[in-house]
Amino acid sequence: MTDDLNTQELLDAIEGELHKSLGDQGNGELRQYYSMLTYHLGWEGEGAGPEARGKRVRPLLLLLTCAAAGGDWQNALPAAAAVELIHNFSLIHDDIQDNSPIRRGRETVWKRWGVAQAINAGDAMFTLAHLSLLRLERTTSLTITTQAANTLQLACLQLTKGQYLDLEFETQAQLPMKAYWQMVGGKTAALLGACTELGAIVANAPQSRREAFRDFGYRLGLAFQAQDDILGIWGDAALTGKSNESDLIAGKKSLPVIYGLEQEGPFAARWAHGPIQPQETKALADQLENEGAHTYTQESASKMTEQALQSLSEANPQGQAGEILISLANRLLRREV
Amino acid sequence: MTDDLNTQELLDAIEGELHKSLGDQGNGELRQYYSMLTYHLGWEGEGAGPEARGKRVRPLLLLLTCAAAGGDWQNALPAAAAVELIHNFSLIHDDIQDNSPIRRGRETVWKRWGVAQAINAGDAMFTLAHLSLLRLERTTSLTITTQAANTLQLACLQLTKGQYLDLEFETQAQLPMKAYWQMVGGKTAALLGACTELGAIVANAPQSRREAFRDFGYRLGLAFQAQDDILGIWGDAALTGKSNESDLIAGKKSLPVIYGLEQEGPFAARWAHGPIQPQETKALADQLENEGAHTYTQESASKMTEQALQSLSEANPQGQAGEILISLANRLLRREV
Repeated sequence: MTDDLNTQELLDAIEGELHKSLGDQGNGELRQYYSMLTYHLGWEGEGAGPEARGKRVRPLLLLLTCAAAGGDWQNALPAAAAVELIHNFSLIHDDIQDNSPIRRGRETVWKRWGVAQAINAGDAMFTLAHLSLLRLERTTSLTITTQAANTLQLACLQLTKGQYLDLEFETQAQLPMKAYWQMVGGKTAALLGACTELGAIVANAPQSRREAFRDFGYRLGLAFQAQDDILGIWGDAALTGKSNESDLIAGKKSLPVIYGLEQEGPFAARWAHGPIQPQETKALADQLENEGAHTYTQESASKMTEQALQSLSEANPQGQAGEILISLANRLLRREV
Repeated sequence: MTDDLNTQELLDAIEGELHKSLGDQGNGELRQYYSMLTYHLGWEGEGAGPEARGKRVRPLLLLLTCAAAGGDWQNALPAAAAVELIHNFSLIHDDIQDNSPIRRGRETVWKRWGVAQAINAGDAMFTLAHLSLLRLERTTSLTITTQAANTLQLACLQLTKGQYLDLEFETQAQLPMKAYWQMVGGKTAALLGACTELGAIVANAPQSRREAFRDFGYRLGLAFQAQDDILGIWGDAALTGKSNESDLIAGKKSLPVIYGLEQEGPFAARWAHGPIQPQETKALADQLENEGAHTYTQESASKMTEQALQSLSEANPQGQAGEILISLANRLLRREV
């Protein structure tokens, strides 16, 4: 079954399942209710198209895990659509919470339809995610369906804890390193861990293998975030000094910044002085690197990557799906700075 | 089993189950995350106590329905906590959307912790609701659990549709009567219909009886809203002309107002002229009554009440729970104007 796997086929199937999850596009009165959701998913409205859709990394990871755990990926499609909808629900609410006007090059939902309707659109996306997951009943068993529902809900709970910490940390001058990992664990890693765990659940893998796949996804999420934090300060886009690209200008307490603040050197002194200006980003990024933050973050990312690949190896991924999964993990983790 | 039923016992059990749903109150970093939830539920913080908790009507209705359908209400507790948490999730988000600073005599969550954290607190409450429902697995069967999960998620989807319409209607000058009922169906009736249906599902009642109980709850919701609309204009509190009590001052498109606008008489002319002032409420309420809106709304409420009681009779409620259910319905529907 995994012999003919190709990623495009999976991506097409994911898009089809997402359309199924959105369901009937509604009568006259509810037309715009659906438009907000299809706009956000990149299907409709100004700027719609592949660029506006995101990479569908989470559902892809889920389907590949299912196949690599010996299952039929087609049976996992309801769960794949569910995790993508959960991700998008959180983006709709995130954009309101962060006051972000632009996402993937287009106006955000709240910017276009107002905060009140955007909150509700996120709630609708959340509900559609769970309804989608419950369609596993048709492709698997009641046992697997309820296990999967619990797994996804627990990940959502972690997501709200991570989001709480992220919002809370904005108002704090300094953060313990431990709090950073707790926040990233909830905001990024929990859902990725749920993706790989759900793939293994649908494949009806034994408990130890489910856990190994879950740990792989979770650690992949931590490593990915540390990498992302490096790009947010030393990536090409960040160094141009555009305010929407550099975490320094945004004042984001990313891992290198927390490390830099702990050093209580020139970087910390400048940070305490007030908002970073665009023309300072290059010099301040150099300063932060001199204080060891780049090396520290890179080493953290490498350690997490190693742990993630260790978990993946323990999970013993099979066949072509296993190979694609390993290469996907490597691609996600070894992005160029 | 229903012989010794008393409402206080059910209410105590509901409160206990809600505490179970909230779970571990978290470590240091997450203390305030939980505080937002326990504050909103009326357990903690300034003004905490029975008054701040609301009446827990939905879980009560669910437990009574379960017993009246021949089930053991104790098995339905996870679902009872779930519907109360869904109701409270929607209140937290509603208060942001309506810009309401006060709920049950206390500051709303967004007013106290800001919009960003309040959106997230609502999302957390939503997730805890579904996790609570999935505990039915321990008290019932996997079949009942997945049926119940689908029923609750579908009600949540209706809730977001009703909320979309409600927000949308604020910007429209006039509404068709049909749109009003569609909005109320989603915002109020769908969750009440889910409560009674869930009670019957946990009791493992046959399909026809589940539907009769669901229709009872749904119609009860419609009748209740029409009654509420009457109180919002002609109730004692509304007639005092306080801005937070009269739907006329709030500019709410309730059933009597939509009826009045359709008459295109003096009421409609005044409404089109701009916001209603406190000193006008009594005279304008009289005018609206003269144009037939009170009679029309009362007749609508009576018709819905009759249909609700008809559905309840078809559901053939049993024992003491059945009696309490009938008297609860009557109490909800025959409130004094």
